[in-house]
Amino acid sequence: MADYVVRCRVCGRTYGRGYRFFRCLCGGVLEVLVDLEGVSWGVDEGALGIFRYSALLPSLSRYVSLGEGRTPTIKRVVDGVEVYFKLEYLNPTGSFKDRGSALAVSKASELGVTEVLEDSSGNTGISIAAYAAYAGIKARIYVPSDIPVGKYVLIKSFGAEVIKAGSRDEASRQVLRDLSEGNYYIGHTWNPYFIEGTKTIAFEVYEDLRSVDYVITPVASGTLLLGFWKGFNELLKLGLITSIPKLVGVQACGYDSLSRFVGRVVRSECREGTVLADAIRLTNAPRLPYIAEAIVRSGGYLVVVNDDLIVDALKDLFRMGFTVEPTSAAAYAAFKLVRKELSGKVLIPLTGSGLKYVGGTESPLYKVFVGG
Amino acid sequence: MADYVVRCRVCGRTYGRGYRFFRCLCGGVLEVLVDLEGVSWGVDEGALGIFRYSALLPSLSRYVSLGEGRTPTIKRVVDGVEVYFKLEYLNPTGSFKDRGSALAVSKASELGVTEVLEDSSGNTGISIAAYAAYAGIKARIYVPSDIPVGKYVLIKSFGAEVIKAGSRDEASRQVLRDLSEGNYYIGHTWNPYFIEGTKTIAFEVYEDLRSVDYVITPVASGTLLLGFWKGFNELLKLGLITSIPKLVGVQACGYDSLSRFVGRVVRSECREGTVLADAIRLTNAPRLPYIAEAIVRSGGYLVVVNDDLIVDALKDLFRMGFTVEPTSAAAYAAFKLVRKELSGKVLIPLTGSGLKYVGGTESPLYKVFVGG
Repeated sequence: MADYVVRCRVCGRTYGRGYRFFRCLCGGVLEVLVDLEGVSWGVDEGALGIFRYSALLPSLSRYVSLGEGRTPTIKRVVDGVEVYFKLEYLNPTGSFKDRGSALAVSKASELGVTEVLEDSSGNTGISIAAYAAYAGIKARIYVPSDIPVGKYVLIKSFGAEVIKAGSRDEASRQVLRDLSEGNYYIGHTWNPYFIEGTKTIAFEVYEDLRSVDYVITPVASGTLLLGFWKGFNELLKLGLITSIPKLVGVQACGYDSLSRFVGRVVRSECREGTVLADAIRLTNAPRLPYIAEAIVRSGGYLVVVNDDLIVDALKDLFRMGFTVEPTSAAAYAAFKLVRKELSGKVLIPLTGSGLKYVGGTESPLYKVFVGG
Repeated sequence: MADYVVRCRVCGRTYGRGYRFFRCLCGGVLEVLVDLEGVSWGVDEGALGIFRYSALLPSLSRYVSLGEGRTPTIKRVVDGVEVYFKLEYLNPTGSFKDRGSALAVSKASELGVTEVLEDSSGNTGISIAAYAAYAGIKARIYVPSDIPVGKYVLIKSFGAEVIKAGSRDEASRQVLRDLSEGNYYIGHTWNPYFIEGTKTIAFEVYEDLRSVDYVITPVASGTLLLGFWKGFNELLKLGLITSIPKLVGVQACGYDSLSRFVGRVVRSECREGTVLADAIRLTNAPRLPYIAEAIVRSGGYLVVVNDDLIVDALKDLFRMGFTVEPTSAAAYAAFKLVRKELSGKVLIPLTGSGLKYVGGTESPLYKVFVGG
């Protein structure tokens, strides 16, 4: 495992591995800087989950893994474009978040934390709750009041306390008010270790495909897009790839927080805010400017999609055999919107599982596929 | 890929690869016999899903894969016993059935089939529907009328026709009445190719752990247990292992169809039939005597568990971070019932995803974890 420091993106101050506050003393967001000096690429096939890549991960005294990562990549040629779907919904709790949780909960465990607090639209809450349960750590999860019932039931099932806090943004505010000396804010929107976990997706793309030309991914707090960015940059530093794929961020109507920061925006018509893409209804992500920077510096852009396009894309994906949630379909909707200008290999991570949405006549899948 | 014939278990008649009727002309169940002469162990790391093991699979002209298999194995020491949980719920549609569907739908595709018929408590119906959708084949799925709503929605979402047919056993009867020259009965309870797919789980156990002493697995139509049996026997023939693990079959109260055939049965108290373990409420599985034979010849036995034990086991598994369905918890409940007599390594496949059960206040997970 690699040596590392934690550094503030804003003031540049650095911290050691014992620092447990979620942000810099100046208020800025933190990042983990892994020392790649003398490190070479290597995969530990005997290790579980993302810890197969421990050579490139920050050194930790304990690994907490439920077998996340190593998800299948399925190629389909769509209108002449080579599309590689990476089935991130097959992670242990049904979303790519498990990559981040594995690392963040491992770190919390190293710090001796006994209770973690998290704010989430659902998927990260489920993920943190599961990994915390596995590690024997209590979890308290702040969610929007209109969280899909399936996601709510899952968080409860892992034994976590669930706080319904109004909107997604209000959940972010309330969790910070409830911090105390006895608990630990593991919040993925701030947590720099979380991105050390999600960056492993870039390593898997390298292992499976060597390189791709575009990555099209939904963005809320940006942990996946920033994971791609960080992972690809580390591969570049190691001399394993020669360029970074263009990162195309996808947001949904009413929640296009990146459009203030990104120069090029491709928009579908927005008459109302998204209801379907519940996993990307966050507007106050702490890392917004850095997400925008990654998109712009990679040569990518932002696409904003509406629910009509998401419904069509969701149907397409199920007819290809993919059990995805509506937010994942947002990325495929964006692909369809811009495919005329794409060439080469396009990677689309299918970020979350549709299995969480199946229950009851109120579920989005029921409405799309069964009627009512 | 290996040469093969299809042979009747009852009269011994053999058929070539073009035979498309689901059973022998004598009425008996069929098995695929792969010719292992001159075949050696080898994993094709460039292939997708179970086709990594194509050297040991029947030769096919087309592969239909959604990335099934290669599921994580998580070790926990429980009361001094080494337990290896194999997370089969992380297969593409949330159950181990995807291994069988990949092979059975590949075969259907080779045969030029345009519509497949299947009877299922839910998981196999979802799986066949997804793989058929991917392969561009129509699917009609016969299910019990009280199928969990989540499973129903999923089958519909893949574009399949769904027929509610009364009980699980009635679904088995009705599907056979509806067979015609224009369709193809892919039914997993009969289909010999299905087991060629599920046998790959034994190959993965060999890859990950070399050997285990016990496998504890739920049994309805027996496709998983028979897959273990066939896969381990092929590894034995190839000289890769020296003995077959003891296969412990698990059934639930009211549906212990194997107890007529297996000498040793460990029973919990059964006051009523299971409601929770909906995936193993089948009593007329065509391969019952052969399942019993595999259990007995391996040195295993049958365990029958009640819903109280299943609820406790389900809670235990979630607290370990495993997102399972109640039927998977039946296997862990059985483990807890007999663990005093177990030694060495115990493998428990966690067969199906709890994500399919999360929706609505009527869901089993809601009742167990949230209350009501």
